[in-house]
Amino acid sequence: MSHELQELKTHLAELSDINAIAALLGWDQSSIMPAGAGEGRGRQIAYISRLSHEKFTSPTIGRLLDTLQKQAESWNPDSVDAALVRITAKDYAQATRVPVEFVSAFSEHTNHSYMTWAAARPANDFRSVVPVLEKTVELSRQLSRYQGEGAHIADALIDVSDSGMTVATLRPLFTTLRESLVPLVERIVAHAPIDDSALRGPFPIQAQLDYAAKLAERLGYDMNRGRLDTAPHPFCAPLHYGDVRITTRARVDDLGDSLFSVIHEVGHAMYEQGVAKELEGTPLAAGTSSGVHESQSRLWENIVGRSKSFWQHYYPELQATFPAQLGHVSVETFYRAINKVSRSLIRTDADEVTYNLHVIVRFELELELLEGTLAVKDLAEVWQERYQQALGIAPTDDKDGVLQDIHWYAGTVGGAFQGYTIGNIMSAQIYEAALAKDASIAPAIARGDYKPLLTWLQTHLYATGRRYDAPTTFKRVTGQELSIEPYFRYLNSKYAELYSL
Amino acid sequence: MSHELQELKTHLAELSDINAIAALLGWDQSSIMPAGAGEGRGRQIAYISRLSHEKFTSPTIGRLLDTLQKQAESWNPDSVDAALVRITAKDYAQATRVPVEFVSAFSEHTNHSYMTWAAARPANDFRSVVPVLEKTVELSRQLSRYQGEGAHIADALIDVSDSGMTVATLRPLFTTLRESLVPLVERIVAHAPIDDSALRGPFPIQAQLDYAAKLAERLGYDMNRGRLDTAPHPFCAPLHYGDVRITTRARVDDLGDSLFSVIHEVGHAMYEQGVAKELEGTPLAAGTSSGVHESQSRLWENIVGRSKSFWQHYYPELQATFPAQLGHVSVETFYRAINKVSRSLIRTDADEVTYNLHVIVRFELELELLEGTLAVKDLAEVWQERYQQALGIAPTDDKDGVLQDIHWYAGTVGGAFQGYTIGNIMSAQIYEAALAKDASIAPAIARGDYKPLLTWLQTHLYATGRRYDAPTTFKRVTGQELSIEPYFRYLNSKYAELYSL
Repeated sequence: MSHELQELKTHLAELSDINAIAALLGWDQSSIMPAGAGEGRGRQIAYISRLSHEKFTSPTIGRLLDTLQKQAESWNPDSVDAALVRITAKDYAQATRVPVEFVSAFSEHTNHSYMTWAAARPANDFRSVVPVLEKTVELSRQLSRYQGEGAHIADALIDVSDSGMTVATLRPLFTTLRESLVPLVERIVAHAPIDDSALRGPFPIQAQLDYAAKLAERLGYDMNRGRLDTAPHPFCAPLHYGDVRITTRARVDDLGDSLFSVIHEVGHAMYEQGVAKELEGTPLAAGTSSGVHESQSRLWENIVGRSKSFWQHYYPELQATFPAQLGHVSVETFYRAINKVSRSLIRTDADEVTYNLHVIVRFELELELLEGTLAVKDLAEVWQERYQQALGIAPTDDKDGVLQDIHWYAGTVGGAFQGYTIGNIMSAQIYEAALAKDASIAPAIARGDYKPLLTWLQTHLYATGRRYDAPTTFKRVTGQELSIEPYFRYLNSKYAELYSL
Repeated sequence: MSHELQELKTHLAELSDINAIAALLGWDQSSIMPAGAGEGRGRQIAYISRLSHEKFTSPTIGRLLDTLQKQAESWNPDSVDAALVRITAKDYAQATRVPVEFVSAFSEHTNHSYMTWAAARPANDFRSVVPVLEKTVELSRQLSRYQGEGAHIADALIDVSDSGMTVATLRPLFTTLRESLVPLVERIVAHAPIDDSALRGPFPIQAQLDYAAKLAERLGYDMNRGRLDTAPHPFCAPLHYGDVRITTRARVDDLGDSLFSVIHEVGHAMYEQGVAKELEGTPLAAGTSSGVHESQSRLWENIVGRSKSFWQHYYPELQATFPAQLGHVSVETFYRAINKVSRSLIRTDADEVTYNLHVIVRFELELELLEGTLAVKDLAEVWQERYQQALGIAPTDDKDGVLQDIHWYAGTVGGAFQGYTIGNIMSAQIYEAALAKDASIAPAIARGDYKPLLTWLQTHLYATGRRYDAPTTFKRVTGQELSIEPYFRYLNSKYAELYSL
């Protein structure tokens, strides 16, 4: 190993510790921190983030990367070291292209925007956020320009979380998806709605959480390197190799919420826990993109967790946990209840069929905002129209409409939503590939044993972390380009049976 | 405010945030962190501690302090700013007198020593720690010499945690205490032992923790700026003004353990929560010494929490929480059970009468080790002799003898134990002073209302933080020099009644 490579690794290992510290501060803040600690915690997070940014963007790192990029020309491009230099250089370029003053102006604006939104949402007051959101759009464009733009003004913003993805590839994909989902939803809602009253309980909170924790371990989440807590919004917090935490929530009248929030976060967490230990202490030690990450949360939540075969195995145990509530409910009734499709307004509560329509509406709107073909002041109205077209239902107020999600009000416009749907599309194709490539997976699943599936995913996907960008990772795992067909096959076959289509 | 003072405050506020981050890392590590996270967490704590040390000991801080100490000659010496400069300069001198290489050699030795002890204790193998402990004694002496020593080689080590206290003042105080406690214990154990079977339960863990949390809030612990978790060893973790956390533990067969661990930590926590907000972000925002800190944990745990009047008020509620276990137990029986005195080997399990004897044995032994009048190789044997003399009981093995406490094996020899007994002595004198100086406190206590006591302590003690050293703080609060008499009066009157002496 060259002297420079060793030096870079030392810097990156220190940075990785700093980022782990920042992640703990954030995890604590979003889960168990007492309310009165907010002011101090804000300062602490700002300090550690600044420290991390300053250390990573230092000229020392830049000089080392310059030298190492030249050295790497003679290395095996598929080696970990070559990937390390490549990915770190890309991160460095992304981080240093943006002037420090812009970063701090944007961050100040984001805080202001968040506070404006937090007040506007309960007051159902879109007008008050219009000037703020207009500025966010302008700053998002500026940010994209700093990154050297792309064929589309959103490309650079998308690339931050979904490296290798562009508007040119995503737009047609999403359009095809929308055009197929709209009629599917119409055919489904033409049938009598599924009765999901079995999920209404009441189910005692602690019993739900205890069962969820047990289920998480059964699926393969390593509690020795993680923990499960409650939080208002479920999330996965990868602190470092030995510590990948998840949170969930539970409602007495909605068993599905705790069950599938946990399985979803377990999917994210098993991906992070599965990154090879040899990548620890480097920027490669993480999931490769938001889309690939979401493919794993959704694979485990939906393809596995909402499948009939899964509950044929686990349902008796769930019944034993809640005998009064589920003792008289058949596994078939339970399976139907957890897969009920309905037109609804809130993205995070949506079923897996309509979910992508929520995302696509947002994706298309943010592209139009960035392009300038849609004005912020018209956004609330256009939101309602698009919901009517895509979901067949429209919010009567902005609180459940354009003010619904935090994303545009606490970050950029552009780049925040596509990962959710990319993940859904990928999940089915990856699952098909796993079944096709390892003959032991399908019979194991028929026995309710998901260990071979997990092992395959660990070996072929999780272990490589950020060594490859999203499209390359996906190609290596599936042997194919991203295609919407497996996802259609999955949805059509599952819902044709559920709704006798 | 001078330019230099403003600049110093900016540096100290940043340091205070860094130290709060370090405190969160430590709290998490000692309470809820998953086991597999240990390796990474060790690195993260080492990093942030080094960062804090480097920033605090930087020449910039030194130059500012030099200038400010001159400026401060014309300030009101009782002002917060004057205290800030005075205390920060003292901390700075303490931190910079020790060469960096020594700090890191000591820290490396401490890690080695801790690991040696952690293996030796269960194996009951004192011999294996002898060479390590010999080196610790030598390094402790060296550390003391760096600090400019004092009349006694231990003085500088004591001063770190109990500023203003010396061997010259403590030795006679502790000797008097020992000479009075030994016969008191003899008189007590000559009587029939108290029956404390009422505390054996079984008491469900979660119900104990729920009750302990309720009790903590009743006493005045602000849960909005804190939280209660379980940990193997109860502790208080003051992160920053808005976040002072406590931990406890619970055993099904020992109700006293969870109750009094929580009240003890609540005493520490209320002290920290009561430090004036104006001191936030400075080194003054903390309890002033380990002895004064312990005076508050012990005041609330013992003088309040183990008093008859306290339980006359709270016992019906405790009975209602555990009707099967306590429904038939009278408050008198419960009161006697929680105040049972017995000769025992383990300091942390000792009752309040014998507790100080455990501490005094250790204090005297560590002075002798530092003086060189006792050799490490003879320590195990001498430990047994001293226990026999002081406690009337001696361990049959070293695990429960000389290997019992972590202190000497994970830090210096010298300075670690005196605070526990200083705290006990102070607690009674501060309590007497409060009752004497505010006529509303005693009648409130008779009604089971401890709010006036807390308010008085907050106003006269907690609020001043580290503005004054321990003896000055104590004098300001009580109007008196430290005296052993109030503590004797307290013990004698309480135990004369309990044991009909």
